[in-house]
Amino acid sequence: MSEESIMDYLHIELVNYILSDKEIKRNENDLSDLEYIGFTTGYRIIEKLTRELPRFKDELDTLKFICTDFWTSIYKKQIDNLRTNHQGVYVLQDNAFRFLTKISAGTQYLEHAPKYVAFTCGLIRGSLLNLGINSTVTAEVQSMPSCKFHIQVNRA
Amino acid sequence: MSEESIMDYLHIELVNYILSDKEIKRNENDLSDLEYIGFTTGYRIIEKLTRELPRFKDELDTLKFICTDFWTSIYKKQIDNLRTNHQGVYVLQDNAFRFLTKISAGTQYLEHAPKYVAFTCGLIRGSLLNLGINSTVTAEVQSMPSCKFHIQVNRA
Repeated sequence: MSEESIMDYLHIELVNYILSDKEIKRNENDLSDLEYIGFTTGYRIIEKLTRELPRFKDELDTLKFICTDFWTSIYKKQIDNLRTNHQGVYVLQDNAFRFLTKISAGTQYLEHAPKYVAFTCGLIRGSLLNLGINSTVTAEVQSMPSCKFHIQVNRA
Repeated sequence: MSEESIMDYLHIELVNYILSDKEIKRNENDLSDLEYIGFTTGYRIIEKLTRELPRFKDELDTLKFICTDFWTSIYKKQIDNLRTNHQGVYVLQDNAFRFLTKISAGTQYLEHAPKYVAFTCGLIRGSLLNLGINSTVTAEVQSMPSCKFHIQVNRA
């Protein structure tokens, strides 16, 4: 999938979000709307990316796809490290997460990190859900531009 | 400028917009927020695109840059036709406007067109303002995916 399509998808979800007919109180610490736009964008993108592919063998196989093809489509690099406890917890580490590379490195502006990772938490959650995996995704930034995405699979 | 940066800019403006501390009533026909996100995105992108360039000769020269380099950076094609009355009115025609090419061609879904052009009206307005041209930008869609952007320069 070309990078063009990624922008197209993001634009469409932006349109849908802004024109959604609901009243909201925005406030500085509420990242749920960003997460939601990421979620709907991820849900759509993964559909296009996996349309021609055979089903994934298992959960780990699915996660590996997220770390490689999916991540590369969007961020032009792979996840640097994937770890799992084999019980539904996965940690994806990106040593140079693109949305953080524009901000000063290190810990000086660490308090700004959450707003630049919320969209991507949603992106992961949406793509996994479309592939049949219901999860909770959080991000941990200790020193920019490195970021760890924690995925907890919610068993039925 | 790479396409990656375009997505980065759009993402940053999305973050800024969503976390802006204001209460709004969204409703289906209000496209001003989309126009505004386009405006701030365009204002930033043009800064990066023109940083290394000499100043433009005049207004027409500036508009030509919007139709070529600027449009190509974002939409991967140039504006197909630029017309002006030489009195501050410019009409930019894109015969296959990217955000409309996903929708069925022709006039069947014409009522959906406005929401897919509002962002771009803002994008043009923001980029022109950063280059010293204060304008009003509207879009006209008669048959998708063709679109005409009307620019009216506001003289001081």
